[in-house]
Amino acid sequence: MGNVKEVLAAVQAGAISLEEAEEQLTRISDLGFASLDLERQKRTGFPEVIFSAGKSVDQLISIFQRLMGHQSVVLATRVSQEQREGLLQAIPQIHSDPEAGIAIWSREPLQPQRSGYVAIVTAGTSDWRVAQEAAWTVRCFGSEARVIADVGVAGIHRLFNRLDEIRGACAIVCVAGMEGALASVVAGLVDKPVIAVPTSVGYGANFGGMSALLTMLNSCANGVAVVNIDNGFGAGYMAGMIHRMALPE
Amino acid sequence: MGNVKEVLAAVQAGAISLEEAEEQLTRISDLGFASLDLERQKRTGFPEVIFSAGKSVDQLISIFQRLMGHQSVVLATRVSQEQREGLLQAIPQIHSDPEAGIAIWSREPLQPQRSGYVAIVTAGTSDWRVAQEAAWTVRCFGSEARVIADVGVAGIHRLFNRLDEIRGACAIVCVAGMEGALASVVAGLVDKPVIAVPTSVGYGANFGGMSALLTMLNSCANGVAVVNIDNGFGAGYMAGMIHRMALPE
Amino acid sequence: MGNVKEVLAAVQAGAISLEEAEEQLTRISDLGFASLDLERQKRTGFPEVIFSAGKSVDQLISIFQRLMGHQSVVLATRVSQEQREGLLQAIPQIHSDPEAGIAIWSREPLQPQRSGYVAIVTAGTSDWRVAQEAAWTVRCFGSEARVIADVGVAGIHRLFNRLDEIRGACAIVCVAGMEGALASVVAGLVDKPVIAVPTSVGYGANFGGMSALLTMLNSCANGVAVVNIDNGFGAGYMAGMIHRMALPE
Amino acid sequence: MGNVKEVLAAVQAGAISLEEAEEQLTRISDLGFASLDLERQKRTGFPEVIFSAGKSVDQLISIFQRLMGHQSVVLATRVSQEQREGLLQAIPQIHSDPEAGIAIWSREPLQPQRSGYVAIVTAGTSDWRVAQEAAWTVRCFGSEARVIADVGVAGIHRLFNRLDEIRGACAIVCVAGMEGALASVVAGLVDKPVIAVPTSVGYGANFGGMSALLTMLNSCANGVAVVNIDNGFGAGYMAGMIHRMALPE
Amino acid sequence: MGNVKEVLAAVQAGAISLEEAEEQLTRISDLGFASLDLERQKRTGFPEVIFSAGKSVDQLISIFQRLMGHQSVVLATRVSQEQREGLLQAIPQIHSDPEAGIAIWSREPLQPQRSGYVAIVTAGTSDWRVAQEAAWTVRCFGSEARVIADVGVAGIHRLFNRLDEIRGACAIVCVAGMEGALASVVAGLVDKPVIAVPTSVGYGANFGGMSALLTMLNSCANGVAVVNIDNGFGAGYMAGMIHRMALPE
Amino acid sequence: MGNVKEVLAAVQAGAISLEEAEEQLTRISDLGFASLDLERQKRTGFPEVIFSAGKSVDQLISIFQRLMGHQSVVLATRVSQEQREGLLQAIPQIHSDPEAGIAIWSREPLQPQRSGYVAIVTAGTSDWRVAQEAAWTVRCFGSEARVIADVGVAGIHRLFNRLDEIRGACAIVCVAGMEGALASVVAGLVDKPVIAVPTSVGYGANFGGMSALLTMLNSCANGVAVVNIDNGFGAGYMAGMIHRMALPE
Amino acid sequence: MGNVKEVLAAVQAGAISLEEAEEQLTRISDLGFASLDLERQKRTGFPEVIFSAGKSVDQLISIFQRLMGHQSVVLATRVSQEQREGLLQAIPQIHSDPEAGIAIWSREPLQPQRSGYVAIVTAGTSDWRVAQEAAWTVRCFGSEARVIADVGVAGIHRLFNRLDEIRGACAIVCVAGMEGALASVVAGLVDKPVIAVPTSVGYGANFGGMSALLTMLNSCANGVAVVNIDNGFGAGYMAGMIHRMALPE
Amino acid sequence: MGNVKEVLAAVQAGAISLEEAEEQLTRISDLGFASLDLERQKRTGFPEVIFSAGKSVDQLISIFQRLMGHQSVVLATRVSQEQREGLLQAIPQIHSDPEAGIAIWSREPLQPQRSGYVAIVTAGTSDWRVAQEAAWTVRCFGSEARVIADVGVAGIHRLFNRLDEIRGACAIVCVAGMEGALASVVAGLVDKPVIAVPTSVGYGANFGGMSALLTMLNSCANGVAVVNIDNGFGAGYMAGMIHRMALPE
Repeated sequence: MGNVKEVLAAVQAGAISLEEAEEQLTRISDLGFASLDLERQKRTGFPEVIFSAGKSVDQLISIFQRLMGHQSVVLATRVSQEQREGLLQAIPQIHSDPEAGIAIWSREPLQPQRSGYVAIVTAGTSDWRVAQEAAWTVRCFGSEARVIADVGVAGIHRLFNRLDEIRGACAIVCVAGMEGALASVVAGLVDKPVIAVPTSVGYGANFGGMSALLTMLNSCANGVAVVNIDNGFGAGYMAGMIHRMALPE
Repeated sequence: MGNVKEVLAAVQAGAISLEEAEEQLTRISDLGFASLDLERQKRTGFPEVIFSAGKSVDQLISIFQRLMGHQSVVLATRVSQEQREGLLQAIPQIHSDPEAGIAIWSREPLQPQRSGYVAIVTAGTSDWRVAQEAAWTVRCFGSEARVIADVGVAGIHRLFNRLDEIRGACAIVCVAGMEGALASVVAGLVDKPVIAVPTSVGYGANFGGMSALLTMLNSCANGVAVVNIDNGFGAGYMAGMIHRMALPE
Repeated sequence: MGNVKEVLAAVQAGAISLEEAEEQLTRISDLGFASLDLERQKRTGFPEVIFSAGKSVDQLISIFQRLMGHQSVVLATRVSQEQREGLLQAIPQIHSDPEAGIAIWSREPLQPQRSGYVAIVTAGTSDWRVAQEAAWTVRCFGSEARVIADVGVAGIHRLFNRLDEIRGACAIVCVAGMEGALASVVAGLVDKPVIAVPTSVGYGANFGGMSALLTMLNSCANGVAVVNIDNGFGAGYMAGMIHRMALPE
Repeated sequence: MGNVKEVLAAVQAGAISLEEAEEQLTRISDLGFASLDLERQKRTGFPEVIFSAGKSVDQLISIFQRLMGHQSVVLATRVSQEQREGLLQAIPQIHSDPEAGIAIWSREPLQPQRSGYVAIVTAGTSDWRVAQEAAWTVRCFGSEARVIADVGVAGIHRLFNRLDEIRGACAIVCVAGMEGALASVVAGLVDKPVIAVPTSVGYGANFGGMSALLTMLNSCANGVAVVNIDNGFGAGYMAGMIHRMALPE
Repeated sequence: MGNVKEVLAAVQAGAISLEEAEEQLTRISDLGFASLDLERQKRTGFPEVIFSAGKSVDQLISIFQRLMGHQSVVLATRVSQEQREGLLQAIPQIHSDPEAGIAIWSREPLQPQRSGYVAIVTAGTSDWRVAQEAAWTVRCFGSEARVIADVGVAGIHRLFNRLDEIRGACAIVCVAGMEGALASVVAGLVDKPVIAVPTSVGYGANFGGMSALLTMLNSCANGVAVVNIDNGFGAGYMAGMIHRMALPE
Repeated sequence: MGNVKEVLAAVQAGAISLEEAEEQLTRISDLGFASLDLERQKRTGFPEVIFSAGKSVDQLISIFQRLMGHQSVVLATRVSQEQREGLLQAIPQIHSDPEAGIAIWSREPLQPQRSGYVAIVTAGTSDWRVAQEAAWTVRCFGSEARVIADVGVAGIHRLFNRLDEIRGACAIVCVAGMEGALASVVAGLVDKPVIAVPTSVGYGANFGGMSALLTMLNSCANGVAVVNIDNGFGAGYMAGMIHRMALPE
Repeated sequence: MGNVKEVLAAVQAGAISLEEAEEQLTRISDLGFASLDLERQKRTGFPEVIFSAGKSVDQLISIFQRLMGHQSVVLATRVSQEQREGLLQAIPQIHSDPEAGIAIWSREPLQPQRSGYVAIVTAGTSDWRVAQEAAWTVRCFGSEARVIADVGVAGIHRLFNRLDEIRGACAIVCVAGMEGALASVVAGLVDKPVIAVPTSVGYGANFGGMSALLTMLNSCANGVAVVNIDNGFGAGYMAGMIHRMALPE
Repeated sequence: MGNVKEVLAAVQAGAISLEEAEEQLTRISDLGFASLDLERQKRTGFPEVIFSAGKSVDQLISIFQRLMGHQSVVLATRVSQEQREGLLQAIPQIHSDPEAGIAIWSREPLQPQRSGYVAIVTAGTSDWRVAQEAAWTVRCFGSEARVIADVGVAGIHRLFNRLDEIRGACAIVCVAGMEGALASVVAGLVDKPVIAVPTSVGYGANFGGMSALLTMLNSCANGVAVVNIDNGFGAGYMAGMIHRMALPE
């Protein structure tokens, strides 16, 4: 008996007692240093995701492998160069994107499972990495992600050139560093939710993204909600969830 | 010719020249001290909202009345006691909620125009005011808002007692002050977007809500996006928008 | 011998000794609690300005009157309601603007003394007060000030409607609270210096204008320099100085 | 005469004068660069602990050795990799835990000297290091430490699975990064003191643990006190002290 | 059937169905604007406490009265002058302390129920108010509280004069504003837990208590844990809990 | 036996036992809510000073009167309007300065007791209040204080006009708000210690004096040390102490 | 058809359709990861500038080369050592200044194209790098830049020695770290706009330049506007723009 | 003619014209990248000191050598390992202290030139480096410096053991990290000025020394002034200046 579903089926069939079931479930999810949340998919509609920062390569591989036995998609974020190499050696079928710092394994190829798309709009080239983290998260939701890069307000015509594509999206992720003004401008032009991601890109007094974070929280345009600095994953998650609600498979 | 639609019809009919139309449109939207955004409804799906703080009673009344001529709903937020009295005297049909600091006028009674609802969950009694601001904003979107008050994590069973109702919502607004932990706990239990509103309620080092804001931005649970401190309106707007997308009329 | 010029003339004429001259000059500028800077006009091209906050009404009147004897324009900023009434009673010919908190006296009527103008662009109605402080300061430089109000990025077409007028200015003051994005957008569209003034208007985590201040310092558009929060005077001063250089009388 | 007790005995016996005693005591505790506090055990019930950061390897070894002559347990915290190697070479009998950054020597094996235990609860795998520092400190008090890892609120059932064990403890150390909500939730469920340790784990605006620190200080649940960011030692110390009081040997 | 115990007894007796019981329990605890946590006593060993700030007088009275039906002690903190008068009029038997901002009702007179005491040490006269809040909270735990006032480090002999009394306590609450150094000094001299409360007393750059808070978090002495600024209640709660554990009735 | 000296004399004379002496000393210094530090003069060369903020009028009067029995000078700072009136009614011989917020009583008239003086230099008129607090503190040390007001760097010639007087001082207190640049400029021109006092005067982002505080801490000129924001007393104390050392009576 | 002008000419000549023109323009400006703003020169009077931080060497070369086809000057800022070497290998004719971190290519040699100059004044030697970034930006505007180094206020006579040269400039850039007082002093002595650049040079509590930034924002002297910390480019841009306006070619 | 004195003598003797003198003086002090302040000794009583951070080794050597021609003592602070080696190779007679980061050259051996001494008191071993910087600065003033290390308040008897030595000093420098409480305790026990230096030593929320800085600024004891974080030089300078005033040679 190797995974949660089997244990539960055995319970239902009366094949094992509740005490045995509890013990087995604990054994499955408990790696000693980590307590996996194998029912998260059922509870929140998305399986557990691995936040890689601060984990050893061995810990990361163990968790990744264990989750592969229970989930149809495994996503790891904030994967360092060293962690990535370890993972690929242990699990070659992983897809990884070094720029975005993500590693993905999915039982079935990741394919859009509904119409529509999420637009991921970035202010500058330097926000690319965060935008990619968001895009891959959206794809793990079974949604299409379109990245519209480098349309910041310093040359606002670039934004207007792409406005139709942005307006056509189901949800919009807006990635911007420096002063982060892009989110307000976009939100004033569309009728869809804008998830804003401040990035830590910038000169001097941007305080590691604090400047863009405050800008986005104080947006004068309505329909903007904010995730943490550089948190492309969180924004992609939110946008994927909204898309899934608006257009179920 | 008093409103935008009429001017545009006249243009279409060739009754007035483009120059005349432009001039008239400017006249309609320009109050000298304010430049109304009468096409916002068309652009963003929601009409212009009045942020009352820092406006004189007279300015507020002028803007409110002008918008009544062009919008089917007019919403003013952050209405002070003095502003509220002035508004009610000038426009008795306004509905106002002193606790929430809002004033609303709508051509048709505000009625849910779609199935489903937005859940507005608060941690403590003191978050009530902000929750009401969110609730009224949701209602302006033609959505039902249900407030589930005082279920903070200090007595977490209160939250579990109401979990079915929260899980049944289309979108969840989570209002919490002090340490703001409620948003993370809720987001870990549901499969719907959680819009978190930090409030400025609390003892000592909460820095006017900064504590709850940081908590929510750093949520270990996925599916949380954040609006500004005490910004019930912003959260209600986001939730209303999501509900409208998920369940169009 | 009542003012500086007379003392200097007497020195030049050999009518008084250097020691006497020094003593007289000291007497003129020293009010005990204040040491007036009567040569500031000569040194910086603009006479001493009175920062009224924290001064008693009597102190304010004394300084104002003393400066009237030595300058062709006297400008007081941050004048409270109580100070304003005291000043008007003592010096009825003062022009004051309660909203802007300024009081002005000028020997000759304030008239534009050069072609061109300074544009003062505001994001919202609530920034009006700061814009007026800037405008009056510009006028004290002998320049024309045009206020273009309420064209913030939430409805960006309002800005485009006024773009020709903004582009025609010699220098642009940009006043914005909340997220302060207006300065970046304007600077990306013009070829003139933009002086940005963050204002303390806003919800929650704007930290008394800190949010807009950081936005403006981090502007991705070039040609933006920033003055302190709510410091309309400082922005008007800078713009007036630039206008005077570009188009001397 | 090598240690404090002997000197004091000699004084009591009249074998040496007070002046001689004073001089000898000074010699024992004074290493030139450090002034050891050899009576701390008597005063506070726990011997002096070495904070290793900023000390050279040689200084560290000297202090460690000197304390071994006067204390039954010597604990060093924040031991770097380089310091650890130096210590082990000089004093091979030291027990060290590289992850926790601690080095321990004890005259007698560390054994629980009373019933009951301290529970050390962590929100995520990345908090492991800090939890271990706390655990070893508790053990130096002669108490049992049980680490209950990775039961953060994103999957709150994991916490409930371990609740009996947590409730059975005499004192609870709660280690959490990101938003740090775990401390509030735990404190709402138990009747024992909760010592909360914020950790510097997290994305973006966690400001090196400031986010979790504020969360814990603002806990809406009662019975929470907080130590500094990443200060596992401080929390273990507090919990050990409480356990010792509740259940003396 | 008016309170929780009765409902549960009825369930046990089979007198009412589970559904009926659930409904009744909900009715008891739900005041519409507040969801009382009537089982907190059982869960955490201390009944629900009312945080009065931000509640109307009527809300406060309702909650207070409802809790009186279910708890043997009711404690309200942060009671304003206006709230206090309202409470006393409605419930004359309340004991209130205007300085400490607390209101207490207890079925039996508050009497020490165990030996030993909690020492509450303050640095200056101005910390008195916070110390009283702590003292009353300790008394609600059935413990004795002794306040040792104004023994701050500027005249450290005052502290040494009272050291025996401080050392004799079971737990020590240390209340200090300005630089808050008292907590470190005390903790270096005792073998009992020190709960430190920073207060917002002070000149200039104390940032409403932030200065003392940081001091206490960074204490070089061991055995210090910290609660929020001015949070006498939280410190008293922690100390009361420790005393209860060390010396059960 | 009313004061400390008498008690000590009685001890020396063998008239009372040590236990009696201890008890009497405690009675003298203990007001219940305050523990006076009657030996501070002996220990630090300056008697205890009363920080009035947060004390009731009655408490203030009691402390003031008690200190009058034991000290030759009593100084209270931060005296509010209400406190001042109460004090004057109870102790008419007090000298008070409402602007500086101080109240002084001295057995002998305050007269310079040594040659030389302390220069107190202010940047603007609005720093006057803080400068006066410093000046009166200097005078309590038996030193002469000379206030040189309004010589800030915006018109630097005003500073040069007074440079000889500044250079002639034994110690210099430099009071400045806004950007606080005056301290650096002065320190670069003199060979005496400069005690810098940042004040909370200013527009926008001065953060209640934080701006000037940071300026002064970061002074590029040598010989500057800083006291807390608006802490004229602290600066005067430091300067008085230096003057006393340089030129003993 | 390679550049924008040619495309537009073809449109004007009717040689290509609007759709073709649009497509070609997009192709020119779109590098996939970057969306170039080829009309910025026309709009803002200065061509697009490359912010190199966070870009790969290959991306940087591609953008640089593409811009060389459309602009008469290409300026890259924040060029790292590695980027500089890559650029020089690919485009040997680039002029680069490693200290200033800039790389420049211009079709024609950079020569002053108008009379007058911009003065760039620095407080200390350590501000040199930022001053050079400003100077090269000014030169790209076709203006002369004169650097006046190391004249900080600690030895204010050094400033007075160079005052004539500073007063003779059309605009003044003031670069200072530590306490940044130089900007106030200079602005009090000249009648030209001062653009202040805070730098991150300094001891301790300068918070990466925050100290100088606040100083400059709070300047008591008029005629100061501020750019971001270490942003020499921004200051040079502003000064170049002002010089160009004052003295057109 | 090589140094300032010679040039001035030639002027006095009429040997060179004023113009020649001015030119020669400029040549002496101007190194292109640095403008030396050769008259600082005369103006402030202490020669120019070199702040080494951010200077190249070659620049440092040039400045050092040039100053050796004009000053009797040359002190460089914040000398890195690389800079130190370069300096020693170029100028072997330099005395350097790698821990303190200082390099000193003096024409005559550094000897106390007056009675008395400055006490430099540190809280912990880790503050050693900063204390040494202070000590060497004091010695450059011709004063004796005594370092009293590791007497922090966690074991306050260590401080009392050394109290006589501390009380005997003319001025006291107090170096402390973590919570920095030492300064308050010392100031409450002495009648001499205490110059407090916060250090960046510590766990978690000490914010690079901000915690100790705030503690020291908020000291409840009188007679404390503060210098910047880790600024041992600044404190030594202040203390040396005070000692020199109190006890001139």
